[in-house]
Amino acid sequence: MTELNFSNEELVFVPVGGATGVGMNCFAYGLNGKWLVVDCGIGFPDDNLPGVDCLLPDPQFLSEHKADIVGLVITHAHEDHIGAIPYLWHDLQCPIYCTAFAKELIEHKLMEAGLLGRTEVHTVSQGDVIELPPFEIEFVKMTHSIPEPNALAIRTKAGLVVHTGDWRFEEKSASESTTDYETLKELGKEGVLAVVCDSTNTSEEKVHANEADVQATLTKLIGEHPHSKIAVGCFASNVVRMQSIYQAAKANNRVVCLLGRSLWRIDAAARATGYFKDIPEFLSEQEALELPSNQVLYICTGSQGERHSALNNLTSMMPTPNQVSFGAGDVVIFSSSVIPGNEKAIDLLQKKLRSKGIQIITEKTELVHISGHYAGEDLKKMYNLLKPHIVLPVHGDTYELNCHTQMAKEMGIPFAIGLNDGQVISLKETPEIVGEIPSGILAVDGNQIIPLNAEVLKKRRKMMDEGTAVLTLVVDQNAQVVGMPQLSTFGLIPDDDEAIKGELGQAISKSLAEIAPERVGEDNLIKDKMRHVVRVFLKEHFGKKPLLEVHLIRV
Amino acid sequence: MTELNFSNEELVFVPVGGATGVGMNCFAYGLNGKWLVVDCGIGFPDDNLPGVDCLLPDPQFLSEHKADIVGLVITHAHEDHIGAIPYLWHDLQCPIYCTAFAKELIEHKLMEAGLLGRTEVHTVSQGDVIELPPFEIEFVKMTHSIPEPNALAIRTKAGLVVHTGDWRFEEKSASESTTDYETLKELGKEGVLAVVCDSTNTSEEKVHANEADVQATLTKLIGEHPHSKIAVGCFASNVVRMQSIYQAAKANNRVVCLLGRSLWRIDAAARATGYFKDIPEFLSEQEALELPSNQVLYICTGSQGERHSALNNLTSMMPTPNQVSFGAGDVVIFSSSVIPGNEKAIDLLQKKLRSKGIQIITEKTELVHISGHYAGEDLKKMYNLLKPHIVLPVHGDTYELNCHTQMAKEMGIPFAIGLNDGQVISLKETPEIVGEIPSGILAVDGNQIIPLNAEVLKKRRKMMDEGTAVLTLVVDQNAQVVGMPQLSTFGLIPDDDEAIKGELGQAISKSLAEIAPERVGEDNLIKDKMRHVVRVFLKEHFGKKPLLEVHLIRV
Repeated sequence: MTELNFSNEELVFVPVGGATGVGMNCFAYGLNGKWLVVDCGIGFPDDNLPGVDCLLPDPQFLSEHKADIVGLVITHAHEDHIGAIPYLWHDLQCPIYCTAFAKELIEHKLMEAGLLGRTEVHTVSQGDVIELPPFEIEFVKMTHSIPEPNALAIRTKAGLVVHTGDWRFEEKSASESTTDYETLKELGKEGVLAVVCDSTNTSEEKVHANEADVQATLTKLIGEHPHSKIAVGCFASNVVRMQSIYQAAKANNRVVCLLGRSLWRIDAAARATGYFKDIPEFLSEQEALELPSNQVLYICTGSQGERHSALNNLTSMMPTPNQVSFGAGDVVIFSSSVIPGNEKAIDLLQKKLRSKGIQIITEKTELVHISGHYAGEDLKKMYNLLKPHIVLPVHGDTYELNCHTQMAKEMGIPFAIGLNDGQVISLKETPEIVGEIPSGILAVDGNQIIPLNAEVLKKRRKMMDEGTAVLTLVVDQNAQVVGMPQLSTFGLIPDDDEAIKGELGQAISKSLAEIAPERVGEDNLIKDKMRHVVRVFLKEHFGKKPLLEVHLIRV
Repeated sequence: MTELNFSNEELVFVPVGGATGVGMNCFAYGLNGKWLVVDCGIGFPDDNLPGVDCLLPDPQFLSEHKADIVGLVITHAHEDHIGAIPYLWHDLQCPIYCTAFAKELIEHKLMEAGLLGRTEVHTVSQGDVIELPPFEIEFVKMTHSIPEPNALAIRTKAGLVVHTGDWRFEEKSASESTTDYETLKELGKEGVLAVVCDSTNTSEEKVHANEADVQATLTKLIGEHPHSKIAVGCFASNVVRMQSIYQAAKANNRVVCLLGRSLWRIDAAARATGYFKDIPEFLSEQEALELPSNQVLYICTGSQGERHSALNNLTSMMPTPNQVSFGAGDVVIFSSSVIPGNEKAIDLLQKKLRSKGIQIITEKTELVHISGHYAGEDLKKMYNLLKPHIVLPVHGDTYELNCHTQMAKEMGIPFAIGLNDGQVISLKETPEIVGEIPSGILAVDGNQIIPLNAEVLKKRRKMMDEGTAVLTLVVDQNAQVVGMPQLSTFGLIPDDDEAIKGELGQAISKSLAEIAPERVGEDNLIKDKMRHVVRVFLKEHFGKKPLLEVHLIRV
């Protein structure tokens, strides 16, 4: 058990994951020996973690306190806020509280993991207050790039904390869902001890446009290409954007076809929870192909350059008859941003599209996307509403987190503190870091969950550069080779290069012949010699140092 | 031999590499059956090419026309313009023409490749004209982030082409080297048939500051931290920046220490060719450690987040006594930009530095870097000077190339044409694409040069996600196992997990026992069965499908 040094009456906050960086959002609030968990998201592996599917916050601390967790409350349904639930379910085993839209997506995940029956998922409406003593949680309607985003007003005897989740402000919206400014203002009057706040775009100075402006731009752009096939790439979970695209298509007498599985999944979740009421069913690819191509608008997955996505399929040189095909004069609109790390993949996709003569329109030149996160001035506005005593920036890269702390200080907020994952802070008049819980990152690798420093990951990094090799040698008691030595290499020698294997075979025989007669019984000696021969040979021929093993078998 | 369809009198241009994208700059001009090659650079592999050191333009066409190549002329000494020379030397075997600084770096490369004695490298001064009939080439002084950058004015009977190389304009410079505007203007008067022009930052609207402003900012920033250790990260080849940093350090009574091999290599080349005349020898790390730390300024490699670089070493938790150590209150200035693709590595480095309490200053908030490439208005200025008939944008991502073409068209330039690698264009009143040469990309992989679609690269991509495995089985003529089966996996099973190997051993024995007595002599049957057993076992236990081989040996 982790020992922490604070009294039962203190309200503490600890980022289990997500304090620095983007992803793995998972936060815990402690009071009177009870814990409230907010969000449980995955992170995305970079190229140093080959084969890893996604990242998880280390649940050790939560697992140790499982019996004292009063609930998991979800701010919104993005993967970096809900994606870890099925993986960490056994460590939490507590009821989940979220809005209807988030519930649809969470239950889909639980179903796929065979956990659906065993989990209580409670629907909470935006504006509702739930009691999870010693915490009372009010869901405050916010604006973000997914339906039903919430800030959580967490009331306790020790004070009120506002946990913003991901958010932006928007004056006029394309949808009915906008921020509940009134409640935020009331919270400010009530007195906010601390705000735990999104930092994604803090350094951006430009005030954002509104979703309605995006819709207007899309309408205009579609109108400018009356004879072209048009596809719009967007983030699948951006339901409001799908609505904007639908309206823009409709204004140009085009019907909408969805291309890509994740769009259809979101469509199902949206319709199940009351969205898209006035929007007819979207067309499938087959249905769309039966219409004149300038009467259709395609919404596509793959705006981040993903290899097996709908936008990438448009670049196919040999489309099947059941597949829509774009060509010279057609238009692809990227109604999305570039997520850091995806620059090259996106450029490659756009290059392929352009080489087919397809015109590309992006947010660089047209207002076809707005971020789901606030720009600089919005943050000031938020703090003017909430007037917090303490600000705890989370969710952003190092630079943005720093800007956030800086800005809060400049606004005269008494405390602005950047925490690391695992640091426990007591939220009080003079906040204080009171300890550290075990924290870290786990990797989902195939069907294993392994630590980031696992030996297999280190090996995989080496072998992806240097290859692997296994030499099998059967020898008798006099170290005479029985049968043929066999060598398998991976990522090194082309399969058909028998000449090079023959050459290696000779080097092996030569080396074996050099063993002194009195030492022919020493397996380790033979193995070492063989390792050396193969290593030198491969280094010389390929300039590579593969991971190498020798299977020596005596008969 | 490649057949091309143009007359002997036509002047043609073909990008061998570097037409779209950044890297692998290599261009050829053809006239009267002769070829002039400009630049010969490498490209940088992305994460889909694990183990690949660098990329090369496919030299097949050049190799076929080796006898007719009049020379290789180098615009400037960046890796993407000279790095491929040692690899493609055998395909070119022509004299090289470049400035003294570029010669230093090229000869260092040739020396390392054992090619120094066999290669003519001629020094050309900026402003000089060389005759390589039917081409006459004038080296025109430009400004870029490396010493001695040149545009090439290529005069032929068929017209004058200006090949800009990489460039920016600068009004007042920190060094003596600035653009030769007069000559550019004269070329415009002479009449420019075509310009082949850098596109890197075309879409950037903001007019750049000057290097002198960077120096002033650095001087101010260093002065603001009189008691701190200070390190400045910069691109090693940016000699002018090293001068600016030196001057800024000197103004604050600090001496400069270089950390990182590539900085020392550039220092040697710079001093050998007359740069740094007024700058005393830089300190080594050892020498610097003997001084009070606030009398030293460290220039470091690693501003792109490279793992084994000087800046990364500063984050070391256990520095040796011979290693400078930074900590709380110290300052690291990133006097560099973020090269696309490096975002995550840089963020990780900055996070590590910050977690040690080190303050980070970047170009986001202070004028500590300017690009070596022009911003939008400069391009207009260039075309107003040169008044070209044809513009051929090269060297930039898809978006920038497109902006470039667009801007040239808006300026009323008659022809602005985006070529792909290999496309041959005849430069004349009405330019025309007259054919295509074989082109493509090769990968330097260890000491092999292989095509990008090589099977080994595909395998390496698979094994970096899924691992590899080899099972060795020695059996007698009745398919009875002799000795113990041996299994090696790479990137799958932790080495110490003997239990799982035992379990697999049982599955193997069970499967062997199922073989019908009349088929025990069939090697392929046994191999297939073994492959199946191991595959199912690993998929079940690890969720992975490794590359797999079975070594079956009969005794």
